[in-house]
Amino acid sequence: MADASRHDRTARQLRLLSDALDTGRLGPVRRLINTLSPAEIANLLESLPTPKRSLVWGLVDPEDDGEVLVHVGEDVRESLIAEMDADELVAAVEDLDIDDLADIAEDLPDQVIAEVLRSMDRENRDRLEQVLSFPEGSAGRLMNPDVVTVRADTTVDVVLRYLRLRGELPDHTDYLFVVSRRHQYLGRVSLSSLLTHETSTPINELIDDEQSAIPAGTSEREVANQFSDHDWVSAPVVDESNILLGRITIDDVVDIIREQAEHQALGAAGLDEDEDLFSPVKRAVRGRVVWLGINLFTAFLAASVIGQFEVTLQKIVALAVLMPIVAGIGGNAAVQVLTLMVRGLALGQVGASNARILLWKEIRVALINGLLIGGIVGVVAFVWFGSAMMSLVIAMALVLNFCAAAAAGVLLPLTLKRMNIDPAVAGTVVVTAVTDIMGFFVFLGLATVILLH
Amino acid sequence: MADASRHDRTARQLRLLSDALDTGRLGPVRRLINTLSPAEIANLLESLPTPKRSLVWGLVDPEDDGEVLVHVGEDVRESLIAEMDADELVAAVEDLDIDDLADIAEDLPDQVIAEVLRSMDRENRDRLEQVLSFPEGSAGRLMNPDVVTVRADTTVDVVLRYLRLRGELPDHTDYLFVVSRRHQYLGRVSLSSLLTHETSTPINELIDDEQSAIPAGTSEREVANQFSDHDWVSAPVVDESNILLGRITIDDVVDIIREQAEHQALGAAGLDEDEDLFSPVKRAVRGRVVWLGINLFTAFLAASVIGQFEVTLQKIVALAVLMPIVAGIGGNAAVQVLTLMVRGLALGQVGASNARILLWKEIRVALINGLLIGGIVGVVAFVWFGSAMMSLVIAMALVLNFCAAAAAGVLLPLTLKRMNIDPAVAGTVVVTAVTDIMGFFVFLGLATVILLH
Repeated sequence: MADASRHDRTARQLRLLSDALDTGRLGPVRRLINTLSPAEIANLLESLPTPKRSLVWGLVDPEDDGEVLVHVGEDVRESLIAEMDADELVAAVEDLDIDDLADIAEDLPDQVIAEVLRSMDRENRDRLEQVLSFPEGSAGRLMNPDVVTVRADTTVDVVLRYLRLRGELPDHTDYLFVVSRRHQYLGRVSLSSLLTHETSTPINELIDDEQSAIPAGTSEREVANQFSDHDWVSAPVVDESNILLGRITIDDVVDIIREQAEHQALGAAGLDEDEDLFSPVKRAVRGRVVWLGINLFTAFLAASVIGQFEVTLQKIVALAVLMPIVAGIGGNAAVQVLTLMVRGLALGQVGASNARILLWKEIRVALINGLLIGGIVGVVAFVWFGSAMMSLVIAMALVLNFCAAAAAGVLLPLTLKRMNIDPAVAGTVVVTAVTDIMGFFVFLGLATVILLH
Repeated sequence: MADASRHDRTARQLRLLSDALDTGRLGPVRRLINTLSPAEIANLLESLPTPKRSLVWGLVDPEDDGEVLVHVGEDVRESLIAEMDADELVAAVEDLDIDDLADIAEDLPDQVIAEVLRSMDRENRDRLEQVLSFPEGSAGRLMNPDVVTVRADTTVDVVLRYLRLRGELPDHTDYLFVVSRRHQYLGRVSLSSLLTHETSTPINELIDDEQSAIPAGTSEREVANQFSDHDWVSAPVVDESNILLGRITIDDVVDIIREQAEHQALGAAGLDEDEDLFSPVKRAVRGRVVWLGINLFTAFLAASVIGQFEVTLQKIVALAVLMPIVAGIGGNAAVQVLTLMVRGLALGQVGASNARILLWKEIRVALINGLLIGGIVGVVAFVWFGSAMMSLVIAMALVLNFCAAAAAGVLLPLTLKRMNIDPAVAGTVVVTAVTDIMGFFVFLGLATVILLH
């Protein structure tokens, strides 16, 4: 995620803003903020500690308030909403697109939702309620019901006249959708084909009906994959009877892809992707301590393995010096295999049909890496402690722990997946628990057998 | 990245394909493959071990070969190219869009590039050479020179007639670009405004000139950020004199965002994002052993710290049992802070202006988490070993290591960034080295001072 240019751009804005805030003159601050897009303002607000954040939030043009709320993370959104009264909130969100409104609806007070629904006309109210009736993370929840439809039994000329009457098209309209009398989805006609064909061309000659519409129950991940597999800008959403309900656009898909990446990166460290950089200490503690507790549990397991070998350790204290190396490098090797598997699983490239081949490949890689790393450690251990047998023990332990790492790295994510546990989140703890326990057990066990008897 | 639906869809295709391959009758395999989009075929090829991959690659419709090559990762691309002769390759890639061709040019044999250039008309050859003159990862390298331009001093009617004459528009054309006589970029006109305005409307009334064009030298990361900050579908690219050179489209931006996420996820485990799931063992070993070597070096550092306390360990062997807990949990806490900081840095939200506030916040979180976790471990240690002083020592060591973790997690990514080292890649090794070394030092040091004297 390191990103020099974005860093530079936002960092520059941040510096300008901080300087302006420090002078105490708010005019320049307001002017600076209002040259930015809502997404940029959102990013800037997330970069500010709470007192400055409140101050700047008060200076944002009220017209942008709604869009900014859509763009910030959940934790920051809550903190911004907490500073607004009901009237301000209603004013901020009532002009949002239906899909954006649906997106933040759960964070708004009930009273505000009720007020916004009251202020809407019947059609929009029904639409919002329909979108909200789909579960979060589904295509139905992502869609915008505002679509332009045409009929098949007409001509380009008629459509052009209709569009001129209608005026402005919704953002990211690249296709008009062709529907039947019962509003069933039949296909799509690109704006580009309307522009490049003679006005007398019948619409049914221009229909592209190859791609079926997205069922409203489809998961947002599948939606994102379909968009990137087919290079779509927008796609129709339908119910079980193929009735056209709305349209998903690429801007929301880009947000999903970014969120997925954040979820993975932060989830692997046991963090919530909505965690605010400046969250209150209490909240941050609560967000992190559970994860630390789980890791603590596995650390105790590993410690109890060491505990079984107290007698051995008492006799050969050098083992205590070397044992973290066996466990640690094994953990690194396991995380490498795990990371490749998690990506393969996410892309659907790994399954029962190729698990065995992957396992065999990774075991061979582990044997070679184990011999290489084990050899180095063996030599260093010999120089350090002057015992050839000790060298042999640690080299053997490393080779075995590398093999355990490969097996755990390949098999555990598949098992977690089958148990419906996200391997991207739980994988690291589990595989490093295996390599810690195996590492201590194999090293101290071999030492007990070979060095003490 | 766990992804049930994609997993299911591709896994189903994979199973069907494997079954079909096993029967040995290739007709059904070919039919199955040719129902898929090039991106889906690419994904499927990446899921197959080498022998099956070659077989399936031979069955792909030659018309799709070029697009499939564009969609696979670099390692897999090399393996596919290695199986084609020069003529096949020329046929596969010569009809690609200029930007796609530029994208894979570096992986093609020189002879093939020369042949493709020869088969092109003068205009396209010049365009390809221009795109290739920009460095990889820049806007100039990403752009497609195929753009539709119009002049400001005309009307909708004239433009519509021009478009009908011209025929089909390039994919993802949502705006036409308005240029001066010298081909300088002046602004853009949306297809949607052409469709919704009267034919007599002058073009200069429809021009949107608010957003300036992207300079060709801009980094692809900055391009991706601008696209998602402004919800663009396409954007113009210009040279230093504001001459329009080409156009970047959202499909390429989506690929960049996905690649960035992969780079981060795989980079954090010391892997190359192009690593093929089924890469030859030798190649996989080479790709991973350097990273393991770096980690080995830090493991030796930590071991040498333990080595300083051999006398203490000899006297109290319980310390050897407990010491990995202090180091391990400290590492987990540090990775949490690091992960938040890396995201903040990527989004430009973290800089000199707020580093101190973040450090202070994380130190407070660390104190509380340290007391909580330290308390638990203290109690368990007391039950296990029956020594109140030992409990005190490990609890104190944990609190101190949590503080070290917070400081390392906040400060090291900032330092790495300043040294132009990607903290997303190098961060984990560095912060866990700190918490390992600190963990062993503080715990064994306190034990020596408190328990032995």
